[in-house]
Amino acid sequence: MSEGFTLKQELRVNEKRIENRIFELAKYGRDEKGRGYRVAYSKGDIEGRAWFMQLMEKAGLNPFIDSGGNIIGRRNGKNPALKPIAFGSHLDMVPDGGDYDGTLGCISALEVIEVLNENRFSTEHPLEVIVFANEEGGLIGSKAMAGNLTAEGLKQVSQSGMMMSEGIRAIGGNPDDIQSSIRKKGDFHAFLELHIEQGGTLENENLHIGVVEGIVGILDCEVTIEGFANHAGTTPMNLRKDALLAASKLVIAANEVINSMPGNQVGTVGKIAVQPGAYNVVPGKVTLGLEIRDLSWDKIEMLLSKIEERAASIATDTETKISFTREANFVKPALTDSSLQQKIIQSANYLGLKTKVMPSGAGHDTQQIASIAPVAMIFVPSVGGISHSPKEFTKTADMANGANVLLQTIMALERV
Amino acid sequence: MSEGFTLKQELRVNEKRIENRIFELAKYGRDEKGRGYRVAYSKGDIEGRAWFMQLMEKAGLNPFIDSGGNIIGRRNGKNPALKPIAFGSHLDMVPDGGDYDGTLGCISALEVIEVLNENRFSTEHPLEVIVFANEEGGLIGSKAMAGNLTAEGLKQVSQSGMMMSEGIRAIGGNPDDIQSSIRKKGDFHAFLELHIEQGGTLENENLHIGVVEGIVGILDCEVTIEGFANHAGTTPMNLRKDALLAASKLVIAANEVINSMPGNQVGTVGKIAVQPGAYNVVPGKVTLGLEIRDLSWDKIEMLLSKIEERAASIATDTETKISFTREANFVKPALTDSSLQQKIIQSANYLGLKTKVMPSGAGHDTQQIASIAPVAMIFVPSVGGISHSPKEFTKTADMANGANVLLQTIMALERV
Repeated sequence: MSEGFTLKQELRVNEKRIENRIFELAKYGRDEKGRGYRVAYSKGDIEGRAWFMQLMEKAGLNPFIDSGGNIIGRRNGKNPALKPIAFGSHLDMVPDGGDYDGTLGCISALEVIEVLNENRFSTEHPLEVIVFANEEGGLIGSKAMAGNLTAEGLKQVSQSGMMMSEGIRAIGGNPDDIQSSIRKKGDFHAFLELHIEQGGTLENENLHIGVVEGIVGILDCEVTIEGFANHAGTTPMNLRKDALLAASKLVIAANEVINSMPGNQVGTVGKIAVQPGAYNVVPGKVTLGLEIRDLSWDKIEMLLSKIEERAASIATDTETKISFTREANFVKPALTDSSLQQKIIQSANYLGLKTKVMPSGAGHDTQQIASIAPVAMIFVPSVGGISHSPKEFTKTADMANGANVLLQTIMALERV
Repeated sequence: MSEGFTLKQELRVNEKRIENRIFELAKYGRDEKGRGYRVAYSKGDIEGRAWFMQLMEKAGLNPFIDSGGNIIGRRNGKNPALKPIAFGSHLDMVPDGGDYDGTLGCISALEVIEVLNENRFSTEHPLEVIVFANEEGGLIGSKAMAGNLTAEGLKQVSQSGMMMSEGIRAIGGNPDDIQSSIRKKGDFHAFLELHIEQGGTLENENLHIGVVEGIVGILDCEVTIEGFANHAGTTPMNLRKDALLAASKLVIAANEVINSMPGNQVGTVGKIAVQPGAYNVVPGKVTLGLEIRDLSWDKIEMLLSKIEERAASIATDTETKISFTREANFVKPALTDSSLQQKIIQSANYLGLKTKVMPSGAGHDTQQIASIAPVAMIFVPSVGGISHSPKEFTKTADMANGANVLLQTIMALERV
């Protein structure tokens, strides 16, 4: 068994094997129209997980399913006193989703184990491959592991139509003993997740690897604009209190506020409804859905208050009333570990890959695990920035780059 | 029987009788929630019409129902060779509508007849009081009279749930002989309609009487804005093709174009729908409903082409695609007779009332009759500019002003 520093750095993943397994997994879970439907707890999810557990078994990981439905496989380290280095992602998808979101992180985690096995390489730390259950339905498996899955959360209905508790049971978990899936703070030496970017920044800037500095917080607000509905033929322009005209000014103002500052914050008005909503009636009332995301909760609050200021002046100008109601489902930002970020950057540099430190705009299981362990994420480019779509695509060379960075980062964690 | 010029000018309507009849008619036709529901062809419409026909009968008008469902009453003139002066409006209402729209014109027409009867005053011209059927459902009765009600139009479903043909039959008309309701071009000496303004201009400018120069044309366009739907967390601001941001710019641009020129044109975006329509998705597609109204069709076309120009530049700036589709239901403008306008102004001036020549932004039966007779309309103020609402209100003094102007204008037509 060779353990020399040079050999560690020469370890490389099998690019073709990763690609084949992505294609192989994509065969599991199709709806009646042939669209990807490996939705958590569905037949396709159960079959895809079974296929993956077989591979884990072959790789000597002795996989088991915890009470939250997460699949966990372990490889011993030379030093049983050391805490495990964990890595993985999820296998479930949104309806009509793509083949790379989540799956790349799981298949690459398995690939790391197989490369170590093939090279008969023993690590000091134990290693854990984790496949989180139902990521797309609200980070359910990772919430269970972090101790954040409540009795109420178990009663919510998942995309599959089942209650979370029923779904967890369907994939081999045990909702009655959900506490046993909890990992305590300090149980892991580190947790790493490789994932597709789901945005277009890396592709657009011709970079290979995104080093995630944190997972953004999310604040959703319902905005109501009240004007006065009136006859669109008989109401002169100067006597109107047009709620949609005011709403349009607000959509533009919100966009201007978000773009007015440096940083990676994003703000979106993705929903709009108008009442009464007819060609021949001046709009009386509009409801908007405004979402702001950033790594800093203070910045989110500051952006919202600037948008509220702009709204107040728009309301005065248009003789409307504008009010903001925060939704209860806000998510606070989760930062990654800066020393892990450095190890990812060094590994990528060694491999000749160009990196960018960036936020993750989407939610990930890593944000749950951040409350119990030092965490980090590795992003690879998404072609066209598209995800949650059948058009989702990541080039095989980029997948291999990400898996090699994952492998090298694990090696770097061994050096400490 | 006195017929001196002085006496004609001294004739005045009975203000209290008009008001009482407005209140009396409002009792007919209520839905289960007590809201006004004298919708064409409904039980309330039939009962309200029966009540009104009794009053016409008492006033000696010998009312009958033509094949289109219009109620027509006649008072002889001294000179049977002269063509009739016709006047009236409609008794049907929109669901949850108000008590003045249409009804004021019918009740005032009857009031004119009763004042003449009480003063034993004979006119040279025969007089006709006309209650048009189903105005709110698309000017159905006046279309029949003008020869514009097609076989296809008779098959459309009315608000009541009945086909137009069934509804016409329900109120005593005969859809199988719809041609017999047609009045030929030149059959009327003039047609006059008194109506509430339904807008806020007269109230706002402290005026008594609106002299309608024409009924506006209407052009509706469905506007489609295509961007690209994407993840609202992972798509940086500079890589978005946000269809709602583009749509908001277009709503404002359309408003600016309409306001950029002198005149009474109005433009409204009253409908909007966004796809997919979620907090966390950048809008991929938006559909808007744009309506433009003006007395000049050329001006409507010119305004639309200016809005299309603005849209083209917004599409370029926002990397979206914007397309306009005209709806088939456009309405061409109908102008009133300028000599009739002058007689209305002179009558109002004689009564000490302040007038304004203005377009009608709403549709009226008069626009149908314009194709077969010289027409004119008299507007009185709507409090708050509100109509098609239970809050619709016109002061009794203003109703009486309108009815007196109607009476004096008929007298003035006698002088020719």
